[in-house]
Amino acid sequence: MDLRPLLLVVGFLLTTLGLAMLIPAAADLAIGHEDWQVFLAAALSTSFIGGSLAITNRGASQALNARQAFLLIVMAWLVIALFGSLPFFYADLGLSFTDAFFEAMSGVTTTGSTVMTGLDDAPPGILLWRSLLQWMGGIGIIVMAVAVLPMLQIGGMQLFRLESSDTSEKILPRAAQISGALMMLYAAITAICAVSLWAAGMSLFDAVAHSMTTVATGGYSTSDGSIANFDSALIDSIVILFMVIGSLPFVLYLQVLRGRPMALWRDSQVRWFFSIALSAIAGLTLYRTLRADTPFLEALREVSFNLVSIVTGTGYSTADYNAWGGFAVGVFFLIMFVGGCAGSTSCGVKIFRIQVLYENAQTRVRKLVQPHGVHMPHFNGKQIAPSVSDAVMNFFFLFFLCFIALALVLSAFGLDFITAASAAGTALANVGPGLGDVVGPAGTFQTLPDGAKWFMSLGMLLGRLELLGVLVLLSPSFWRG
Amino acid sequence: MDLRPLLLVVGFLLTTLGLAMLIPAAADLAIGHEDWQVFLAAALSTSFIGGSLAITNRGASQALNARQAFLLIVMAWLVIALFGSLPFFYADLGLSFTDAFFEAMSGVTTTGSTVMTGLDDAPPGILLWRSLLQWMGGIGIIVMAVAVLPMLQIGGMQLFRLESSDTSEKILPRAAQISGALMMLYAAITAICAVSLWAAGMSLFDAVAHSMTTVATGGYSTSDGSIANFDSALIDSIVILFMVIGSLPFVLYLQVLRGRPMALWRDSQVRWFFSIALSAIAGLTLYRTLRADTPFLEALREVSFNLVSIVTGTGYSTADYNAWGGFAVGVFFLIMFVGGCAGSTSCGVKIFRIQVLYENAQTRVRKLVQPHGVHMPHFNGKQIAPSVSDAVMNFFFLFFLCFIALALVLSAFGLDFITAASAAGTALANVGPGLGDVVGPAGTFQTLPDGAKWFMSLGMLLGRLELLGVLVLLSPSFWRG
Repeated sequence: MDLRPLLLVVGFLLTTLGLAMLIPAAADLAIGHEDWQVFLAAALSTSFIGGSLAITNRGASQALNARQAFLLIVMAWLVIALFGSLPFFYADLGLSFTDAFFEAMSGVTTTGSTVMTGLDDAPPGILLWRSLLQWMGGIGIIVMAVAVLPMLQIGGMQLFRLESSDTSEKILPRAAQISGALMMLYAAITAICAVSLWAAGMSLFDAVAHSMTTVATGGYSTSDGSIANFDSALIDSIVILFMVIGSLPFVLYLQVLRGRPMALWRDSQVRWFFSIALSAIAGLTLYRTLRADTPFLEALREVSFNLVSIVTGTGYSTADYNAWGGFAVGVFFLIMFVGGCAGSTSCGVKIFRIQVLYENAQTRVRKLVQPHGVHMPHFNGKQIAPSVSDAVMNFFFLFFLCFIALALVLSAFGLDFITAASAAGTALANVGPGLGDVVGPAGTFQTLPDGAKWFMSLGMLLGRLELLGVLVLLSPSFWRG
Repeated sequence: MDLRPLLLVVGFLLTTLGLAMLIPAAADLAIGHEDWQVFLAAALSTSFIGGSLAITNRGASQALNARQAFLLIVMAWLVIALFGSLPFFYADLGLSFTDAFFEAMSGVTTTGSTVMTGLDDAPPGILLWRSLLQWMGGIGIIVMAVAVLPMLQIGGMQLFRLESSDTSEKILPRAAQISGALMMLYAAITAICAVSLWAAGMSLFDAVAHSMTTVATGGYSTSDGSIANFDSALIDSIVILFMVIGSLPFVLYLQVLRGRPMALWRDSQVRWFFSIALSAIAGLTLYRTLRADTPFLEALREVSFNLVSIVTGTGYSTADYNAWGGFAVGVFFLIMFVGGCAGSTSCGVKIFRIQVLYENAQTRVRKLVQPHGVHMPHFNGKQIAPSVSDAVMNFFFLFFLCFIALALVLSAFGLDFITAASAAGTALANVGPGLGDVVGPAGTFQTLPDGAKWFMSLGMLLGRLELLGVLVLLSPSFWRG
């Protein structure tokens, strides 16, 4: 396999990452915190290695075959997490390498599980770096979901091919063409979010940091208390709005801007997303109001925020919903896996897959009753090709399998059942907090054994690359060529 | 829809059920317990209603179409549970109608979750009736799985059509033809089991009662302490052996008897079943020995018995594995869903479906790496038809969906997370005990709210009829015709 085109792309990505490190360096320098040296050193070494890779492999073919593309996405995400962890490791935070890598992987996959505490007193550079990692991870995944995954036919993503004539040979030029518009849009949405949060009462720094982790559905905060720290219904609402915006298909925003205002609502994914989120909110608010004697408005505010935070895979929290009783724990556990729409910054099983699974099941029931009738499943008004159904159902099984395997491994490290199961789920679905006292919204991942953190990091990568992006590398036939 | 053929079959089944009630009546009469009157009254009324149905509908066509067959299996199981609950309700046990129905449904579906305590002092009639319900449920499900479900193409069971030319019109004659041999075999295996248990030290009564619930992978015992009450490694081993026998495809035993001794081992289902069970036993024994300082042989005995009991869906217990730590709880939670082979008395997702899912996933990975290669999934050396793959993957999704829905409903009744989740799983997979202190191996289902018991009964029926047997009735197209 020719690795040079891969190294060229990784080189470009690392150079960008290195340049991005100058931002926290500048922030720390501005307030005179010595961490600016850590960021500068990390920026220089990362850019140097990135630049060297780019230069030595310049002129390499930009046409990738499927195997190269699979290897590239895994390499890219791993290398960025690795170099992204340098500031965490070298800054004076007392983090082990395991912790630093976990924090970076959790950041760049937009998971948001953190091993850091004392965020309220942390220097601005580190806080900004956590936000930047999630923000870059967010746009990275949008570009990948729109331009790369459909060609690789991962998990039914071929439903979202932009043109049916695309082949994997065109991946990179196509990615370059589309990523410009998406990046500008992403930056604009983030800016609007930042200004809104600032106007609602956040400091400018907090507003910028949270806008990046909100739109990326990442969930890193500048406070140990997460969004609850600001205790403002207005801020809660703004964050809810932009978490939702981060979970809808970004290409549809482009269509709306190009004069098709109904494009969003016409997508059945979007309607399903709202139906699922709203019914969960309604059910849980009712449950809270009736059983826990919480005032209706308080219940509504807490449930809406935390439920949207989990279903979008963001992972902010404003309450310890862990203590809301068995039904609430069950709903939060499940909603964790749902995720947002394809081509958004959120992860999880994703709405369109749930739709395809549901359509197939319905078609199957009809077939059983009328064995000789013609029954076809549909998605967004079009027939679902059998290969797509197959891919989606396979994805679902593999997701379940990876979840089980990860949960068992974590429990073998001594974690109790609910901690292990929810930690596995939150990693695979790139959500952030788990359930239970240890990894729940009021806990921290700090205390997990090192081995558990490595396996969770692997889980985050698996989830972010739609499982198959990683699993194909484990197949002997991949390496046989 | 012509209901007469259905009522004819239900009539025959009820008459049989009524006659079976004479056995516990005789047992109670023999020791002079007044419950013999309850059983006699129940026997007379059940046989009378059954006989009336059979006589008034005699001569009805025996050819059923798919819709009639679906309605028949649901009606048959419901009516048997209903009439089977009469002795529990009318005997002096203090059971509400909810409890009596739960106990009967749990019996006839071979689940084995019980609401009764004080079994050690219970009269023989009731104990025998619990065993008989499971025993009849066991053979009922074998006959149904071999003769009815493959024609209805439920959940991929069409893999097990006896002849490719069978159509649903031939269901009943075919069932009659094959059920004779299977019933004799089933009775013979049960007799051998009873004699073995008796020889190993059980009283004759206990041996007979346990042989019926062992071969049926049901799990009702004559003691609150279940098999632990006998505290004999020999009895443990015999029970393990016959639980396993109950979980393998019964048609293969017929083939072995007809001079093809390797038929069992040649079936990949059987090899997968042993691989899964043995690796779980090995892993958990190691875990127990290393982490809990349990002596190796004690760990091996406890783990083997309880794990085989759960994977086969029997549900006996000899230890509170609930207290073995997070990893053990995780393994027991998962193994609950696996179940045995198609055409056995056990339930759950079933081995062949796990094989089909795995084969499909593997094929998919190969396709991603080599998009232009030809890759087909196989089962037992034959290609899996796309319609079978589809049906199996659909089944898996529906199982997951039913599990989630049931777990949420149970948690809405106030059950905590692990109790609700494991109770939902144990009902759907027809296992018996759940996890946690309430419904775990050391607990009882007695204390659950009535509503939860009704939903669990529905779950047991869903699981026993492979979900789709019930779910099709919910489809509007079923009733439109």
